[in-house]
Amino acid sequence: MSLLVVGSIAFDSVRTPYGEVREVLGGSAAYCALAASYFTPVRVVAVVGDDFGDASMAALRRRDIDLSGIEVRQGRTFRWSGVYSDDLNERTTLSTELNVFESFQPKIRQQDVGIPNLFLGNIDPDLQRRVLGDVRPGFAACDTMNFWIEGKNDSLKRLLGGVDGLVINDSEARLLAGELNTVVAARRLLALGLRFLVIKRGEYGAALFAGGHYFAIPAYPVERPVDPTGAGDSFAGGFMGHLARRGVTGGALREAMIYGSVMASFCVEDFSLRRLQDLTQETIETRAVELRQFLSMDEPPAPSRAPATR
Amino acid sequence: MSLLVVGSIAFDSVRTPYGEVREVLGGSAAYCALAASYFTPVRVVAVVGDDFGDASMAALRRRDIDLSGIEVRQGRTFRWSGVYSDDLNERTTLSTELNVFESFQPKIRQQDVGIPNLFLGNIDPDLQRRVLGDVRPGFAACDTMNFWIEGKNDSLKRLLGGVDGLVINDSEARLLAGELNTVVAARRLLALGLRFLVIKRGEYGAALFAGGHYFAIPAYPVERPVDPTGAGDSFAGGFMGHLARRGVTGGALREAMIYGSVMASFCVEDFSLRRLQDLTQETIETRAVELRQFLSMDEPPAPSRAPATR
Repeated sequence: MSLLVVGSIAFDSVRTPYGEVREVLGGSAAYCALAASYFTPVRVVAVVGDDFGDASMAALRRRDIDLSGIEVRQGRTFRWSGVYSDDLNERTTLSTELNVFESFQPKIRQQDVGIPNLFLGNIDPDLQRRVLGDVRPGFAACDTMNFWIEGKNDSLKRLLGGVDGLVINDSEARLLAGELNTVVAARRLLALGLRFLVIKRGEYGAALFAGGHYFAIPAYPVERPVDPTGAGDSFAGGFMGHLARRGVTGGALREAMIYGSVMASFCVEDFSLRRLQDLTQETIETRAVELRQFLSMDEPPAPSRAPATR
Repeated sequence: MSLLVVGSIAFDSVRTPYGEVREVLGGSAAYCALAASYFTPVRVVAVVGDDFGDASMAALRRRDIDLSGIEVRQGRTFRWSGVYSDDLNERTTLSTELNVFESFQPKIRQQDVGIPNLFLGNIDPDLQRRVLGDVRPGFAACDTMNFWIEGKNDSLKRLLGGVDGLVINDSEARLLAGELNTVVAARRLLALGLRFLVIKRGEYGAALFAGGHYFAIPAYPVERPVDPTGAGDSFAGGFMGHLARRGVTGGALREAMIYGSVMASFCVEDFSLRRLQDLTQETIETRAVELRQFLSMDEPPAPSRAPATR
């Protein structure tokens, strides 16, 4: 069942201890859509500038993502640049040029109305709410960030009453709930009307609060992380993609956490969207099997492919 | 099967956003022994000053811990004081007075030789190695800290070739391995001769590397943490206690991770050893069942006692 992803497409310039890239494809919608494309048909609604060019889109097009909802506007594409610390856990933004993204007005076409699944990437919650109202999807989840939590708190909280789920960073969840303890923060956020809440913890994995239950998984242990940019959006893509494929029934949310974590693990293994471009179902499934084993109480019978022993 | 714990006993003064205590019972051996006492008979080898007094020992004695190996020396007991940040994740040491602990020489008695299980708390690795050689236990694990990693690296690495396992903080594991990536760090540490490695990640849980396998659990989600002091030592106590009770076979290491995490979760719910004093087997088992459920791929059938819904 199709998934509509609304969010940003950007040119990122990134420096990490493992190298540097300039003006490469990035943005929440790009990462999320590419990760989700291994699970379900994906459409993107976003905006780029007239400097974007068709070649920049190649990675997304090769995965048969429907790009007809990407608006090309006069001006420059959204640009972000940042640098990571030695352990990749700290990120410093060097520059943010919103450019055409500043006045982004997502255009929902007739064919998008009633789409079964919608992911509202991190944009102005006023826009997220308008899109949600226009699309009236079967199932919707969203992300957000500090800027909107602080600047448009009321609008954001109204949005959360209208979506099924929120997929958000640990620190942002605490800020949004006004509570430092994650468990208490989660209860407060669910009380806003959410069916589920996913808290992303970077290299420490992710936690799910849903239906009175708690579920937590470690990150898939990556030996050579290169660039964490887009990992959270790739998580959202794998998570939403699996739910779009299977439907939100029974243990599907827990399985979706596994696929979110798997797609995030691929994302960080190279700069930009490179590692997410040429995966296979088998590669993805192998990691999903391993990750399930990493949280199984039963020790596997024979040496597994656990990274510690390779 | 009995467990011998060698480590520190201290008077701690602690300030957190939830209150303040002065000169309360603390130290790695105290936390570890008390947590382990719910699983197996425990003996302690440690040193205190002549200011310690028998009343200070009451919490340990009530749990039938064998305290006859605690040496009382002329002078003051080890004192530590510190303050925690609002989210309890940052700790600043205000003062450390080693006092009688500075010249601690663990005394191994005839009855301790050949004890089935030994936990070497965080003391000088030269002493840890001597104790290991004197005791010749069936099974041994140890902890350490930055001070010894930097100051006595060679001795520490020789120690790791002689014990079965290392139970250590995330940042210390990276420092000891000279490698920022946890997976690579773990492989390097195992190559020193360890059968298993436990990496403690505080509120993010803990990871086990053993026998070619990786296993990770979240922390038990505590709603009202009060004081994290001793949580890592309580983890070690629950972990070692379960192994002493069950023996190191099959999935015992994974089960031991569960009990380590459960005992750490009780520890942080009050200052000092208070919460660890009056637990029951049922209280412990209830949390262990919940924690296993938090990492089960199968969604529980009915609303569980997950903290988010209470």
